Amino acid sequence: MRVTEIGEFGLIQRLTHVLERAGVAASSPQAAFPLVIGIGDDAAAWRTDAVLELSTTDTVVEGVHFTRETTPWKDLGWKAMAANLSDIAAMGGMPLYALATLGLPQDAQVADLEALYEGLAWACQEHGAVVAGGDIVRSPVFFLTIALSGYTRDAPLKRSSARSGDLLALSGPVGGSRGGLEMMLKELPADASSAEALRFAHRHPQPRLSEGRILVQEGVLCAMDLSDGLYDDLGKFMAASRCAAELEAWRIPFPSALERVFPGQATEMALAGGEDYELLFAAPPAVVERALARIPSAAIVGRVVAGAPGNVSVTGRDGKPLPVGKLGWDHFRS
Amino acid sequence: MRVTEIGEFGLIQRLTHVLERAGVAASSPQAAFPLVIGIGDDAAAWRTDAVLELSTTDTVVEGVHFTRETTPWKDLGWKAMAANLSDIAAMGGMPLYALATLGLPQDAQVADLEALYEGLAWACQEHGAVVAGGDIVRSPVFFLTIALSGYTRDAPLKRSSARSGDLLALSGPVGGSRGGLEMMLKELPADASSAEALRFAHRHPQPRLSEGRILVQEGVLCAMDLSDGLYDDLGKFMAASRCAAELEAWRIPFPSALERVFPGQATEMALAGGEDYELLFAAPPAVVERALARIPSAAIVGRVVAGAPGNVSVTGRDGKPLPVGKLGWDHFRS
Repeated sequence: MRVTEIGEFGLIQRLTHVLERAGVAASSPQAAFPLVIGIGDDAAAWRTDAVLELSTTDTVVEGVHFTRETTPWKDLGWKAMAANLSDIAAMGGMPLYALATLGLPQDAQVADLEALYEGLAWACQEHGAVVAGGDIVRSPVFFLTIALSGYTRDAPLKRSSARSGDLLALSGPVGGSRGGLEMMLKELPADASSAEALRFAHRHPQPRLSEGRILVQEGVLCAMDLSDGLYDDLGKFMAASRCAAELEAWRIPFPSALERVFPGQATEMALAGGEDYELLFAAPPAVVERALARIPSAAIVGRVVAGAPGNVSVTGRDGKPLPVGKLGWDHFRS
Repeated sequence: MRVTEIGEFGLIQRLTHVLERAGVAASSPQAAFPLVIGIGDDAAAWRTDAVLELSTTDTVVEGVHFTRETTPWKDLGWKAMAANLSDIAAMGGMPLYALATLGLPQDAQVADLEALYEGLAWACQEHGAVVAGGDIVRSPVFFLTIALSGYTRDAPLKRSSARSGDLLALSGPVGGSRGGLEMMLKELPADASSAEALRFAHRHPQPRLSEGRILVQEGVLCAMDLSDGLYDDLGKFMAASRCAAELEAWRIPFPSALERVFPGQATEMALAGGEDYELLFAAPPAVVERALARIPSAAIVGRVVAGAPGNVSVTGRDGKPLPVGKLGWDHFRS
């Protein structure tokens, strides 16, 4: 059934029903700051107190950020919400309320959007967020924009406070999402369990909210989440902190399935692949050690050094520099 | 110059510069709740205290909500921000921080986007909002989504609390935006001052933030802003309040230019035309009188009655019902 058959009001009712079933609609209580006004008024409203209010937004556009072939609708909903939750995680915060904007072409199908909302609701459910409203507009291309609020009572994890001498660490393995995408696009041969692991990494990246909280508790002051790839994002991180970084390539954790499906390319994919949403953080060695003790998947990958702001060098196991070509991506430059 | 020539980072620098010149960038102090973290980190962050936090979002898509012929880029920026500011006004709140998401096609021009941001900045400047961050994505079609936070320390203006016996009033004249659009699209003849008045109504709708504050101060409890047209929006308002409404057509205020350019059609256009962003509110007669005394452009347009929830009847000067065809619009139903 097409959206045009039930109209905007009918669609809102159905999508709200999906959220209600999952307990993440405006009508469902959110633990920290209950919603006072939800879907159906001019704005969402909730009572707050003396906290640091966080706000982020992230968008997916069909044909640019995903295709229906490699990302089913439910997984797309998960991923879109996970990307926003990950931004809150990267501040060391807790999520609160989301607004979802749907851009819908004439042929949009109600069942697809219900599946999308199931994925959205699923990610909200696992991480304590609630969808408090949004907007539905016509558009020649499908897009979904989520704006997510969150909060923290502690010092937020900033990108700008890394210092020379800090160690750099990751909350978990990277490269799996990119590996999964390439495997599907190129229809590469893979054993069943490797294929499943990489598909899962691409379709169900985990926002590291509890890891973000652990970092804050252990005294970490700076972190970011990895959306555009380790090499590229580390450059941005260091530019914000006016420092340089040395990455030790052999330390970078990646899923073992990546090496099985892409023999000899796993480290490069771990450096360049995006959408893993692991947290990259920097702190003095003693602080990093404490954080690592509480995050089993975490690993040290390098160090912050004095140097040209934003410069990232990569060394091999022998300590010699590895040549690095074009890794990561600019969303626009041609 | 195309965006592809300077890349995402170059574009962000230029747009930030536009905001900074206007004093509405993340780096500019916002009076009520200063920003702790702005553009360039994973999320925006500001300290808050015990308030009611408000959150809204609104999107414009090229070819659906505007065309370059009828809305210059700077005016589009104004309108997009005004639509969001109007939602905060309709809650009786004050605006705080905006996140702007740009969906950009390959041929997007830097100068157009700078003009867009000048309009955005202008609306922020006039109403005390600040652009704290956002997102830039590739898209086959241009779109702009704004998510805006605000706050209030008072009871918010809800859609659901109108009661039978309340009077209905508007903060100012309606129909001018639709009139301006039709005049431009159909290239209708109009005297210079009427043409200018209607063009201005279409391109520079005023979010009624100070009027929203006055309503709260005078004890009004329910209001909404008019984006889809008086007749249509009043139906939604009454549905939310489980009431019906009687509109007195001859009381509806419209710009005098509307009657000059569309003789005999002004009332119908005032009923059906959207994007005026005036506030529609309901309250007991004594409260409405107090509010009207402080808002010179405001006018009583009807009353809330018992009846089928959402039903709106329209009567002429003689008290007889006026036949009402299809007014307002559903964004999707074909």
